[in-house]
Amino acid sequence: MQSTHTSYNEIAGKRVQRIEAIGDGVFAIALTLLVLDIRVPVSEAIHTEADLIKAFCSLTPKLLAWFLSFLTLGIFWTGHAAQYHYIERSDRNLNWISLFFLLFISILPFTTAFLSEYMTFKFAIGIYWLNIFLLGVVIYMHWRYASRHDFLSIQGEEKAQVQHAIERRVIIAQSLYAFGALLCFINTYLSIGFIILVQLNYAFAFIQSKRRK
Amino acid sequence: MQSTHTSYNEIAGKRVQRIEAIGDGVFAIALTLLVLDIRVPVSEAIHTEADLIKAFCSLTPKLLAWFLSFLTLGIFWTGHAAQYHYIERSDRNLNWISLFFLLFISILPFTTAFLSEYMTFKFAIGIYWLNIFLLGVVIYMHWRYASRHDFLSIQGEEKAQVQHAIERRVIIAQSLYAFGALLCFINTYLSIGFIILVQLNYAFAFIQSKRRK
Amino acid sequence: MQSTHTSYNEIAGKRVQRIEAIGDGVFAIALTLLVLDIRVPVSEAIHTEADLIKAFCSLTPKLLAWFLSFLTLGIFWTGHAAQYHYIERSDRNLNWISLFFLLFISILPFTTAFLSEYMTFKFAIGIYWLNIFLLGVVIYMHWRYASRHDFLSIQGEEKAQVQHAIERRVIIAQSLYAFGALLCFINTYLSIGFIILVQLNYAFAFIQSKRRK
Amino acid sequence: MQSTHTSYNEIAGKRVQRIEAIGDGVFAIALTLLVLDIRVPVSEAIHTEADLIKAFCSLTPKLLAWFLSFLTLGIFWTGHAAQYHYIERSDRNLNWISLFFLLFISILPFTTAFLSEYMTFKFAIGIYWLNIFLLGVVIYMHWRYASRHDFLSIQGEEKAQVQHAIERRVIIAQSLYAFGALLCFINTYLSIGFIILVQLNYAFAFIQSKRRK
Repeated sequence: MQSTHTSYNEIAGKRVQRIEAIGDGVFAIALTLLVLDIRVPVSEAIHTEADLIKAFCSLTPKLLAWFLSFLTLGIFWTGHAAQYHYIERSDRNLNWISLFFLLFISILPFTTAFLSEYMTFKFAIGIYWLNIFLLGVVIYMHWRYASRHDFLSIQGEEKAQVQHAIERRVIIAQSLYAFGALLCFINTYLSIGFIILVQLNYAFAFIQSKRRK
Repeated sequence: MQSTHTSYNEIAGKRVQRIEAIGDGVFAIALTLLVLDIRVPVSEAIHTEADLIKAFCSLTPKLLAWFLSFLTLGIFWTGHAAQYHYIERSDRNLNWISLFFLLFISILPFTTAFLSEYMTFKFAIGIYWLNIFLLGVVIYMHWRYASRHDFLSIQGEEKAQVQHAIERRVIIAQSLYAFGALLCFINTYLSIGFIILVQLNYAFAFIQSKRRK
Repeated sequence: MQSTHTSYNEIAGKRVQRIEAIGDGVFAIALTLLVLDIRVPVSEAIHTEADLIKAFCSLTPKLLAWFLSFLTLGIFWTGHAAQYHYIERSDRNLNWISLFFLLFISILPFTTAFLSEYMTFKFAIGIYWLNIFLLGVVIYMHWRYASRHDFLSIQGEEKAQVQHAIERRVIIAQSLYAFGALLCFINTYLSIGFIILVQLNYAFAFIQSKRRK
Repeated sequence: MQSTHTSYNEIAGKRVQRIEAIGDGVFAIALTLLVLDIRVPVSEAIHTEADLIKAFCSLTPKLLAWFLSFLTLGIFWTGHAAQYHYIERSDRNLNWISLFFLLFISILPFTTAFLSEYMTFKFAIGIYWLNIFLLGVVIYMHWRYASRHDFLSIQGEEKAQVQHAIERRVIIAQSLYAFGALLCFINTYLSIGFIILVQLNYAFAFIQSKRRK
């Protein structure tokens, strides 16, 4: 009798479309969250064009944080969407792994703003790296879980190829991020610069597109 | 002639996909609402790594509220999605029950933040519990209504099994939350600790996964 | 040659699903916008349960505004979704009518908060009524346009029935709102009370469900 | 062996529905972002209807910014949706072009608010124009890329017609915006007025609808 008993956990978390939909919602909000920080400078002291340009330029750190946050979110959103291109089933565990992924996505605008405010502090780089590292861990677990439980729409050789490509990407990217974070013991700007270069490369795919030719 | 008259209430609230879409939107916003409260600490007094770590640690209550809110929202979102896995039709009443569910979801970040600010007050636990209780009542009504009006995609034995699993889950969870809330008359931290343990269990399914083996 | 020329306006605004998706997004945000106004009361003077209850009660106007805004948004969202249950095609004009509907939806949390702050002022009732009136005008135009341009999935008798139900609902509701707004010349609380009763009725359908029996 | 190797970049960015979904999310948030700036005026000095009307009128610049931002966002959202009416496939490059489009959409409420605050400054017009120009460049690149890589659902003559209509629209609109921006060297109000007229025309299609008769 116990074997025919349906538990709630067996029926929860099966709607792949819902996981994608709430994911897109959280990403869309995270992408715009740092825009809320960019306030129009209001000052009695702005009388000339030069005053206004100067006031605008003081927004540079916030504009940089917004752009950096956009790059990172874009990279992880692309990764999330790429996995769901092949995932066609789900269970409650995959559902919760996906929710934890969104948890770390939702905090990314904060850790980015924290870094942009304290660029000379190793602790700020550590927190930012930790966020990216946790995202990497969760998205890796997400794929492994889906693949091992046969939730994918692909099989055999194609599955092996896609699996290799996705896992390799996460491991290489995380190694580069970790290396970049460690550079902070030499110089924090060097560390941030290296991480941004890695992200720009993943956004624009300079190196990969050359290799494909 | 009156019998052939179509009333607005007969044609409203039929779009299940729309109810799911607005639901995902409200959940996505609620999940990120408490992130808005986590502001980068800005202070003239931050000069060393130790200062920054200290400033970061002062954010702990807000980070806890964000995590607690995430757990609760994740649990109810999974429940909402699990119901709509089986609900394929709707009418205006189910539509409005679903909207009231979203009403109580939208206020959850506030009641969570209220609790995290006043952890030693019975009233704060009462408000937080009331919110979770109302969510439980509405999601229970939601399922009963859909099931009684034959809006489900399943029939017979399967329907009975799923129905039993969903209703049992709500009743057990609500009993545990009510017990946890009552613990505040002994000690408020005990009460909060118990509620968080219940939520962690529903997120990670420790007990259930053991039972299934 | 001019007749074979395709203009941009002929190819724009055709994606009904996109109009529904952006609609659900704007509604979801509008539903949660007033929650941002409900801040956890922080005060050095809160020492006892009674202090906290008193501080919580001071939030009542904001909680009322949030609930009132929810009712109104729920009513119009249900109306919008009911129309798109039957609309299966679109053009750029319907697309823009829908966008203007969302324009007035996005401002509704503001006009509601404005009313809840200035409940004894005729001007605040006027602005709130104007918002609801404009929503009524646009949603009426929206349906008429879709119906006249044959964008519906229904025909003949069914179309006539649905058309009658939708148009009748808008006209009766708007007449009641206008009557309610005019009551402000007697007493503003009478006016607000009447409008809330109308909205509660549309949410819970007391009168209609009696009639259907 | 290298030719059978699947790279991550070949499997990323293929989900057209996801790109549309995150797009609708970002647009919905951008549409409501300026509403957050319209705060209910709270003042001890408001005693009469005349006081309240005066306080409300002081919100006019913010209401104008909200309306102007709505028009611009509506125009670009319609353009984005019109392209995806024909785009049925995607790759990682198109995915990233689309994300950069959303980057410039997310900042539009800021540049609009900046302009509405500093209407007499050429620099504010320059920044606003730059935002619209970048949106035009990215949406043009987006279409060209999709068309050249054969991601469209249309072929032959129909493709040529649609292509011509979409590209012509972007080029004419951008020429008008650039002309409007240059008018700021005569007078900034003239410049803003001209840009608003162009946008109103694209929203209401006065000129086009006349031509079609």
